[in-house]
Amino acid sequence: MGAAGVPLFDHHAHSLRRVQPDTPEAFRAHFTESDASEIVRGHLGWSLFYRRALADLGRYFGCPPAEDAILTARARRPFGELTRAMFEDAGIGALLVDPGFRAADHYDLAALRGMLPCPAGELLRLEVLAERLIPESDGWPDLRERFAAEVRAAAGRVRGLKTIIAYRTGLDVRNWDAASLAAAFRQTRDAAARGRTRLASKPLLDTLLWTALDIAAEHRLPVQVHTGFGDRDLDLRLANPLWLRPAFEHPPFRPITFVLLHSYPYVREAAWLAHVYPHVAMDLSLTVPFAAHAATDAIVEALGLAPASKVLLATDAFSIPELFWLAARHAREALDAALSIIERRGFAGPEDREAIARRLLWDNAVAIYGDLAKNAR
Amino acid sequence: MGAAGVPLFDHHAHSLRRVQPDTPEAFRAHFTESDASEIVRGHLGWSLFYRRALADLGRYFGCPPAEDAILTARARRPFGELTRAMFEDAGIGALLVDPGFRAADHYDLAALRGMLPCPAGELLRLEVLAERLIPESDGWPDLRERFAAEVRAAAGRVRGLKTIIAYRTGLDVRNWDAASLAAAFRQTRDAAARGRTRLASKPLLDTLLWTALDIAAEHRLPVQVHTGFGDRDLDLRLANPLWLRPAFEHPPFRPITFVLLHSYPYVREAAWLAHVYPHVAMDLSLTVPFAAHAATDAIVEALGLAPASKVLLATDAFSIPELFWLAARHAREALDAALSIIERRGFAGPEDREAIARRLLWDNAVAIYGDLAKNAR
Amino acid sequence: MGAAGVPLFDHHAHSLRRVQPDTPEAFRAHFTESDASEIVRGHLGWSLFYRRALADLGRYFGCPPAEDAILTARARRPFGELTRAMFEDAGIGALLVDPGFRAADHYDLAALRGMLPCPAGELLRLEVLAERLIPESDGWPDLRERFAAEVRAAAGRVRGLKTIIAYRTGLDVRNWDAASLAAAFRQTRDAAARGRTRLASKPLLDTLLWTALDIAAEHRLPVQVHTGFGDRDLDLRLANPLWLRPAFEHPPFRPITFVLLHSYPYVREAAWLAHVYPHVAMDLSLTVPFAAHAATDAIVEALGLAPASKVLLATDAFSIPELFWLAARHAREALDAALSIIERRGFAGPEDREAIARRLLWDNAVAIYGDLAKNAR
Repeated sequence: MGAAGVPLFDHHAHSLRRVQPDTPEAFRAHFTESDASEIVRGHLGWSLFYRRALADLGRYFGCPPAEDAILTARARRPFGELTRAMFEDAGIGALLVDPGFRAADHYDLAALRGMLPCPAGELLRLEVLAERLIPESDGWPDLRERFAAEVRAAAGRVRGLKTIIAYRTGLDVRNWDAASLAAAFRQTRDAAARGRTRLASKPLLDTLLWTALDIAAEHRLPVQVHTGFGDRDLDLRLANPLWLRPAFEHPPFRPITFVLLHSYPYVREAAWLAHVYPHVAMDLSLTVPFAAHAATDAIVEALGLAPASKVLLATDAFSIPELFWLAARHAREALDAALSIIERRGFAGPEDREAIARRLLWDNAVAIYGDLAKNAR
Repeated sequence: MGAAGVPLFDHHAHSLRRVQPDTPEAFRAHFTESDASEIVRGHLGWSLFYRRALADLGRYFGCPPAEDAILTARARRPFGELTRAMFEDAGIGALLVDPGFRAADHYDLAALRGMLPCPAGELLRLEVLAERLIPESDGWPDLRERFAAEVRAAAGRVRGLKTIIAYRTGLDVRNWDAASLAAAFRQTRDAAARGRTRLASKPLLDTLLWTALDIAAEHRLPVQVHTGFGDRDLDLRLANPLWLRPAFEHPPFRPITFVLLHSYPYVREAAWLAHVYPHVAMDLSLTVPFAAHAATDAIVEALGLAPASKVLLATDAFSIPELFWLAARHAREALDAALSIIERRGFAGPEDREAIARRLLWDNAVAIYGDLAKNAR
Repeated sequence: MGAAGVPLFDHHAHSLRRVQPDTPEAFRAHFTESDASEIVRGHLGWSLFYRRALADLGRYFGCPPAEDAILTARARRPFGELTRAMFEDAGIGALLVDPGFRAADHYDLAALRGMLPCPAGELLRLEVLAERLIPESDGWPDLRERFAAEVRAAAGRVRGLKTIIAYRTGLDVRNWDAASLAAAFRQTRDAAARGRTRLASKPLLDTLLWTALDIAAEHRLPVQVHTGFGDRDLDLRLANPLWLRPAFEHPPFRPITFVLLHSYPYVREAAWLAHVYPHVAMDLSLTVPFAAHAATDAIVEALGLAPASKVLLATDAFSIPELFWLAARHAREALDAALSIIERRGFAGPEDREAIARRLLWDNAVAIYGDLAKNAR
């Protein structure tokens, strides 16, 4: 009967922070995509997701639904034990981690694996790789070659590539000539030498993404693409997945499964892409849990045009185990609420609920990324 | 009480295939906008619309809700009798057909009329006409003249024009100078001579559409415009009906009623256009049935900003009678579900339901296209 | 228990007409954003908002829900008394008025204040100010100086600035060089001299807005920005609040609170902006009441990503007291319906309903504009 007993293959998440938050403000900052202290201090108390989170965590820890009480309760438990317990209670059965997010102060994959009660695979965040290679590269052709070599070398190790180009220069990926690329490389390396290592050069990002996609196609690697909302780094107009049409229509990329991450507010657009392109799937992590009650409507919309075999859920959680626990629970709950709406309208019977839930929570991820348990890497 | 007893004026549909599908895969292909065999084979079983379709058809044919059983049941009945029975059961009281869709292997209008239990009128698909005229035209001015002559000649015969320019070069229609048009004509005719007859030249498509609109205005002919989703031929960004503003603001086009077809996902945008422009109406065919349960929300949204006198429903069905039957039934059901939501929120009383249903299903189409029964052509 | 007893701080509205409508058609024209008589005559009877309005007004006046009866009933009562009674019944506790809308035939602020049972503050409509200054200015630098001086002078008097640049040239505000500005000024003043006083010059509008924002930042004045739908003057593509990103990212503008007005259909986009930017809030006036039953969904969406401390409601009413009365009532009703959906999904408890309602209806406006009662100006 629905999503309750179905494990989650959390195909898109991040690692845990080595130093856990110990003040209300530091804890609270994990519950918004805003980097502004005014939001954290003045507005988060009115975020319906955060209010619900406190209520849920109070129940979990058996304490009042208040920051101080929760911080005290979580600090009482050894972090490894807390993590294991919350992952188990959340029914997370497998995990793919993007270790490129604030790597310096998060556990590396080996350490994380040691803490988790489930297998964990790895994703390769392309832009972080490129940033690492720029200072050591000798011109654009050399950068491209090094980048390609590293992506190829990773192909046997990682479960998928991930691009956050939407955060940098947007999804309107274009072709660039050699002169533009050479000039962009020089500017970017000079900026990196002066300490500005964040790669935001459109010629380089566009062309390296295309390079990575060529390799993904050779190796039949899935590629996760950040689409839709996130933090304010992003121009949301350029995060509309419809911009990716040239990549979807490019015949050499047909062996890739593109997984559109998050998708909100472009859920209907993503669902249409998943409807017409065999190699496009969509995900609603970050929408669950950040859009709170509205995540239910996002799932309803997704299952309108997209087949249930093309829609995925995940936590996109990071840094603290509570986010994993909340997002996994809210995903199942939102999915159940969505299925109730769909059932009321006659487009699913009670006998379909668990099968559909299993597709979104587990089976679709296994079909795309493989079974982590069988072939851990 | 609601839509149940109200006939449908199916103002936008296509003809039936002379050779009907006789394998599960061939049958299934009618239930997706995707042209990919992987979708048809691997994903359609997870389409909530298709699952529902099988259940409904199983009930209709009195057989298990499975492809083989349905194929066997439908093959047992003479095709003409099956068509007539399904149209009658679907309560389709009038039909407008775009005969330009895969004309070679579909019944022509005369044959189709012989099979149907209701009157059927004709739409003129502009791009197919242009494609036919290009090889026989002698330069751009000649093409334009021939095109205008044929549109004018059709004006007395057809109930409306239809454009699928969204599928070719998008709705951002522009002005082009004579030199661009002459060059575009030469390229296009050369391509046609080499067998590439699909017209995708933006200068020609934009200018011929404007020519057709001039004639539609003279003859007060309605013009159906494909907007929103469809198959992957289409760049969905350029299918947003908001691009059509220059046409809506062009005073000579005021005698035209523009009917925005499909509209999804741009339902709110289309509803606003229907709210402010007296000569713009919107339709939700293709959304019903392809968006499954989400069609209900589309109707709710449409009736928010658009008056009920500006919203139409149709089947956009093609090739097999089952699509007509399903789409007509799902349209009434989604409309009833939408009216229940609206009623619960206090914006329609029980006494309004049938009147509103009648506007969307029948009266609005009669107001725009005329009464087929009275003046069959 | 919910919004019922909570007063509305109507932070965005207009004045009342000195000559009230006395024919059905003149009355009806206030219930649509369309300027077309065909809409008013032929379609408004099918607007679900208008049908509901007649029913509500019939109950209020104790007469049949028909235009003639309502016109007779309202004409029987002195206009001042009617206004006062409807505002009191609507629970409007404070009002901010944009006096720049059709000022010639509406009461000025002093006269309006004399009629209202609540305090009323003033907004400064920037584009109307610019239009007034153009004929008397001697070149672009002089216009800019006069404009800045008037905005500065108003800063002590008004509660906020308001821009309708979305109605003129869109929200994609750009930088312009001195030569473009000088040329644009000459053209605009020449047009004004020939009677075309409506300012639609992109260089002037963009640059004057930036000038006004600089002053708003100095004085910490809130700035209301028309976004989303309105009448057909507007290219809805360019009314997407996402275009405003350069202003939100401009550090000197951080002291401004930007209030995105209306927002529909870009509600999810506006909610994301309010989620990530501490100085961005969103409003759903005009959506309530013009989107009828769909306003409920807009509130549900807004409260998904935006904290409840960032979402405002208002009437955007104008000309006739009935619009204020209806919009205030529908706002509370839609909010209650939205909170019921949110509660059903577990993201608000019964104990949260009134607190959330109070934020949207009153507290958020006080936080942004100050308390009108305490410090009337």
